[in-house]
Amino acid sequence: MRDVSIAGVGMIPFGKYPDRLVEELGRDAVIDAFHDCSATRDDVQETFVGSVFAGGGIGQRIAKLTGMSGMPITNIENACASGSTALRNGWLAVASGQVDVALVVGVDKLSGSSGPLIVTGGDRDAAAGLTMPALYAMRAQAYMQKYGVGIAEIAGVVVKNRANASMNSHSYFRQPVDLDAVLNSAMVAEPLTLYQCCPKVDGASAVILVAGERAKKFTDSPVRIVASQLCSGSFRPGYRDFASPEISVRAAREAYELAGLGPEDIDVAEIHDAFSISELLYYEALQFCPEGEATKFLRDGSSSLGGALPVNTSGGLIAKGHPPGATGLAQVHEVVTQLRGRAGDRQVKGARTGLVHCTGGGVSGYDHASASIHVLAR
Amino acid sequence: MRDVSIAGVGMIPFGKYPDRLVEELGRDAVIDAFHDCSATRDDVQETFVGSVFAGGGIGQRIAKLTGMSGMPITNIENACASGSTALRNGWLAVASGQVDVALVVGVDKLSGSSGPLIVTGGDRDAAAGLTMPALYAMRAQAYMQKYGVGIAEIAGVVVKNRANASMNSHSYFRQPVDLDAVLNSAMVAEPLTLYQCCPKVDGASAVILVAGERAKKFTDSPVRIVASQLCSGSFRPGYRDFASPEISVRAAREAYELAGLGPEDIDVAEIHDAFSISELLYYEALQFCPEGEATKFLRDGSSSLGGALPVNTSGGLIAKGHPPGATGLAQVHEVVTQLRGRAGDRQVKGARTGLVHCTGGGVSGYDHASASIHVLAR
Repeated sequence: MRDVSIAGVGMIPFGKYPDRLVEELGRDAVIDAFHDCSATRDDVQETFVGSVFAGGGIGQRIAKLTGMSGMPITNIENACASGSTALRNGWLAVASGQVDVALVVGVDKLSGSSGPLIVTGGDRDAAAGLTMPALYAMRAQAYMQKYGVGIAEIAGVVVKNRANASMNSHSYFRQPVDLDAVLNSAMVAEPLTLYQCCPKVDGASAVILVAGERAKKFTDSPVRIVASQLCSGSFRPGYRDFASPEISVRAAREAYELAGLGPEDIDVAEIHDAFSISELLYYEALQFCPEGEATKFLRDGSSSLGGALPVNTSGGLIAKGHPPGATGLAQVHEVVTQLRGRAGDRQVKGARTGLVHCTGGGVSGYDHASASIHVLAR
Repeated sequence: MRDVSIAGVGMIPFGKYPDRLVEELGRDAVIDAFHDCSATRDDVQETFVGSVFAGGGIGQRIAKLTGMSGMPITNIENACASGSTALRNGWLAVASGQVDVALVVGVDKLSGSSGPLIVTGGDRDAAAGLTMPALYAMRAQAYMQKYGVGIAEIAGVVVKNRANASMNSHSYFRQPVDLDAVLNSAMVAEPLTLYQCCPKVDGASAVILVAGERAKKFTDSPVRIVASQLCSGSFRPGYRDFASPEISVRAAREAYELAGLGPEDIDVAEIHDAFSISELLYYEALQFCPEGEATKFLRDGSSSLGGALPVNTSGGLIAKGHPPGATGLAQVHEVVTQLRGRAGDRQVKGARTGLVHCTGGGVSGYDHASASIHVLAR
């Protein structure tokens, strides 16, 4: 297995594009990634495309619109981890020596659709009321009870991430909000209010992977993939450990081992804040802080810009939006931008090592889920 | 890149299972593959699942039912080549050294569904009448005109494949048919009658891949993957070359080069006979015979049992049925069975090298398609 680097990243601003085809969104992200490095369509030897809702042959449709043809194309679904799963498969293709240059794309278009995964969960659970917001509301309740904290301490995640998003032109929400606004927005599932749930948007993102030893041919600012980990497991281990997402705990532990790094080495992270409580649970799962101390980690500014480990500098899913296929690679886009020192007003000074965490699944017959961690370094 | 072998294969008899969940079909194929070798659930380090219609998280659902957890799971869609694309990604995972044992599953359940891909094609084309049978009917017309042959010479494919299927307990159709019956069955799209179109069925198949050097630990009859090729391109290069499926021509040429073998080295082949004319087009695309001589190759018995290169000894898609996710791995199941000398009455004597060809896509906005070739050897 050889080293793999990211030569280029691209994405479209997340938002609502009701009049555009999903493959057009994908194409625009791909072109943006080509503009970000010197790789061209002719360099791409294999393509992996992650999506949940784009329908059959999404990779072939994007390739056609982009004027590419010939190479192997694999379409991948892994719920909200579809984009990161595509990244892992692209990493494998390059790390193996099979190809020197791979294109990875993530895309989904939720506007104009019922977007069942995010809001309603699977059919059987939805019938019982166990939608995604309800599931995370139960996690929030369990966490609040276990550690004696209130919803105001959890909802602070939204204030932080919206503030970050106000500096990110690719984010759907760009207006900062204060805690009162978050807490007073419409109740979705007690204690989660509307602003504590990520918005349904359209989006696309792309990453160009190259063999490490060839990276300088394509860019003067390659970012190395020092660990690519994907694992599966039960999303709902039971009410007793509702507050500890087992698959993310395990994926993180394995990724740190692969990277030869620990949480103390991470300078910036994008993690899967589909709901306010999610980000807090993942602070602990990823060992950013001890169990039960997530609200303290948030409150003392550790995860804010200027803190010890800024989290979701892009605005996260909460502000940027969550088109599931695109999310994992948009997270990579942000961390690569940070590691290159090109994040403008939201730049984490001196960031050298970043972590991307994405998780998917967990509804209906489908309570077996996935978690993915990528550790990146310049 | 290291050698990869198939340690075990499994499948369920293709048919109609309206009362069973699609993940139950997948589980049964997986268990059948475990019974075929000494690998167990605990040996599996990564799983790849190909399906078109099974819905989100199909791999996770199968893993859960099979009592497996923890490993990376990737769900793959590539139209009718979904199963073979999953195989290629599994091959990559083992060939790279990332894992020693990978499970590959293909599954689809079409009974009780509208099965749009096979019968109706994509929305836009379907509205114009360009369904899959219509598309292949046009190819048949073009071929007949170009080479001055009649439909009776094409329909002979069905007689051959139905005869093969009568010896295969996993086939959906097991009754032999004569040429009159084929030609007199209901007209679907001139000149293709009903019996010249593959039936919509439910099915599941599984393959256990292991590192070549560890193969003997799991089976005394491993089958090597000597080439795994996947490519994309336009499915419809235009009316001028309707009779030559470019992506299959190219995939075959590349696979032979990778394998260091030519068509003359192939002892048995499973190829993508979704329609009678398909098998004939692919004889030429795979260089089994010169251009324009496919009907002669069929008529003189070259592709029949006992001929120089028996094709679709399983009965092919035409008889066995075509649940798209499962098809590619069911083809592998047959070739592995042949190479092991366990095909009973339909055994190709002394078969040492086999080829599996699968293609997918080509409808609607999705005229960019895929073709996959695997060359296997004992």
